[in-house]
Amino acid sequence: MSAIVIAINAAISVSAYLMTVRMIPRFRDMFVKARLYGKDLCKRDQPQVPESYGVLIGCVFLVSLFLFIPIPFTFDEAAAMDVETGGKPATFPHDKFVELIAALLSICCMIFLGFADDVLDLRWRHKLLLPTIATLPLLMVYYVNYNSTTIILPHFARAFFGKSVNIGIFYYVYMGMLAVFCTNAINILAGINGLEVGQSLIIAASILVFNITELCLGHQIESHKFSIYFVLPFLATSLALWKFNKYPSKVFVGDTFCYFAGMTFAVVGILGHFSKTLLLFFLPQIINFLYSTPQLFHFVPCPRHRLPKYDAKTDLLHISTTDFHPKELGTLGRVMVTVFRTLRLISWQEKSDGRVITNNFTLINFVLVVFGPVHERVVTQMLMGVQVMCTLVAFVIRYPLANYFYET
Amino acid sequence: MSAIVIAINAAISVSAYLMTVRMIPRFRDMFVKARLYGKDLCKRDQPQVPESYGVLIGCVFLVSLFLFIPIPFTFDEAAAMDVETGGKPATFPHDKFVELIAALLSICCMIFLGFADDVLDLRWRHKLLLPTIATLPLLMVYYVNYNSTTIILPHFARAFFGKSVNIGIFYYVYMGMLAVFCTNAINILAGINGLEVGQSLIIAASILVFNITELCLGHQIESHKFSIYFVLPFLATSLALWKFNKYPSKVFVGDTFCYFAGMTFAVVGILGHFSKTLLLFFLPQIINFLYSTPQLFHFVPCPRHRLPKYDAKTDLLHISTTDFHPKELGTLGRVMVTVFRTLRLISWQEKSDGRVITNNFTLINFVLVVFGPVHERVVTQMLMGVQVMCTLVAFVIRYPLANYFYET
Repeated sequence: MSAIVIAINAAISVSAYLMTVRMIPRFRDMFVKARLYGKDLCKRDQPQVPESYGVLIGCVFLVSLFLFIPIPFTFDEAAAMDVETGGKPATFPHDKFVELIAALLSICCMIFLGFADDVLDLRWRHKLLLPTIATLPLLMVYYVNYNSTTIILPHFARAFFGKSVNIGIFYYVYMGMLAVFCTNAINILAGINGLEVGQSLIIAASILVFNITELCLGHQIESHKFSIYFVLPFLATSLALWKFNKYPSKVFVGDTFCYFAGMTFAVVGILGHFSKTLLLFFLPQIINFLYSTPQLFHFVPCPRHRLPKYDAKTDLLHISTTDFHPKELGTLGRVMVTVFRTLRLISWQEKSDGRVITNNFTLINFVLVVFGPVHERVVTQMLMGVQVMCTLVAFVIRYPLANYFYET
Repeated sequence: MSAIVIAINAAISVSAYLMTVRMIPRFRDMFVKARLYGKDLCKRDQPQVPESYGVLIGCVFLVSLFLFIPIPFTFDEAAAMDVETGGKPATFPHDKFVELIAALLSICCMIFLGFADDVLDLRWRHKLLLPTIATLPLLMVYYVNYNSTTIILPHFARAFFGKSVNIGIFYYVYMGMLAVFCTNAINILAGINGLEVGQSLIIAASILVFNITELCLGHQIESHKFSIYFVLPFLATSLALWKFNKYPSKVFVGDTFCYFAGMTFAVVGILGHFSKTLLLFFLPQIINFLYSTPQLFHFVPCPRHRLPKYDAKTDLLHISTTDFHPKELGTLGRVMVTVFRTLRLISWQEKSDGRVITNNFTLINFVLVVFGPVHERVVTQMLMGVQVMCTLVAFVIRYPLANYFYET
């Protein structure tokens, strides 16, 4: 029966893909008229590109899932209507039903807030507050349905803390922070054509492969089916968006898409019970975040935009830079910069007056530091390559290594 | 216990009111910067007023309810956590829980779509399609939790059809159409300062009085408590908005608010099982809709804007008009116009060339036909007065008359 349900989900996803591909060009004028567009700075003619298309594919995603929700229950014997009374049977799996609805509430909330952010240009504190709020329904369902806040420890830690530790409320704090991280991590590894959608596609595909692997191994069937229900339509709609967002971008995705993608991943990670594995698929985003911290938290001067610089003559991207005098930095800032410089993670150029010019601390700039000026399309491809490699690493950690540290 | 839960809901609503009152002026610049503003055409200086504030109060409403949702279950013995296992008890009222979450999903979806409409200026077909889609989660929950599609007939009809009729799928069509009607009915009785919020406040207050009456009578306790949980925060946030939206408006509410209000009413009407009573509270909107039909469906020429005309000299509102030659109209159009003219529901002025000038068919213009040029503030007050009177009529129909036609 599960196979039929997933097949129907796949069929809905294919329709969603076809519909989205048709819709995206048709909505162009509407977005431009609403002044939702931005200049593509890394092109010779700096064309105006309609922005915030995440809202469109988010809507298609929601509608697809609204239509899909009744399906799993149609094929579930426990949910079959009582023929005599026409009412629900006592066995109806309300807990599964509420999981689907709450997951959609969190995602819908996040698409809405992302769009509000695109239109109203919200402040940084809102960007941290909003995903936290949008996760509340999810955490409530987790509390009601599972409330399992115990983490299993690896062998080497068991001598000190025992086999498992119940971290109680902190598990909810962790899950709330996971949602904040997922939504913002994609948002800060962004800015060149196709990168937001490209990385999301690879993460989603990784989750799908992981879900299928676990299903084949017979682990936690319900959780992984639940995840697939969301990941397939997400992949379909994002793939349609990718068609128009890849280099050269005909549409931009906006914060809406990053929030939508991040929340979808957080939802399947939390309610699918694989939040730690999910974080493994976010390795490049974690690396980008750690690499960015000196600038994000202003230990090192941070210009308003950290995107690579475009050279119109060669059509290549160069690193963008920040400059400072080492004496301006606080102790922490100086330590961070010294570590990065020693590990050759940043470029370093000293001027005669003692000031230093270095690249901005983003993964995109790092790729340019290593490989020199590169074409925009190639930078995206390289970063997507990194994402794929990290997924392979994640699978090695998740299976052989985890089997070693935790008994299976 | 119910009293405590409602008291907490009221306390959250008061906080929501205070917060919204503080937030509204602070977001002004953000809305103007995002070009979300419109000219107030019925003022001498036609000031630019920030638009779409429904999105702000919608967010406060959602957050209030997110925070409230755990409360009813905290005080519900059936939902008390199993102390030994730390897990959910088998008696946890999942069906109540999913009702709250699905209701919020529908409302959140509608706020989002309303905001998208304000920003992107969607087409008419979307305005009918979107509320239908947003109602799907609601209908699913209704199907799962009740699936009661039987309507009780009044005495006089029982001779022909029996005591009750099961209308099956048509009951769902009716509920879907109810949502479409509620969201759009408020949207078309709008356009002068404070009217959208004013009418919504009165409808919400009517629902609240009805819920309290039913609670006192001991009818369907659960349904009416459910309704109060939504109506109180709605009243609180709308009251805060009213403070800034009443004449002279410092902020406009946008389609977002109309959709938000309409969907909230539809949700409590459907899941609270009083959709017919709800429609009674919409009497002025129904009258406005029926009165508008000749123009809405283009049997009579309909100008793009049907708002009253502002006379800067006297600061009063006059009727806005449409003109046509009776021969231009189709048969249906001519019948409609003749009926309206005979019943003196429209103004009628014949020109020498046979063309006719008449007011546009909206309730606002009708008030001006009857009372002549009136100040904008007074028009809103008159229409709110009509709304209050209709509520009184509704209560007379609901209680003495319904008791007569249906045995209690």
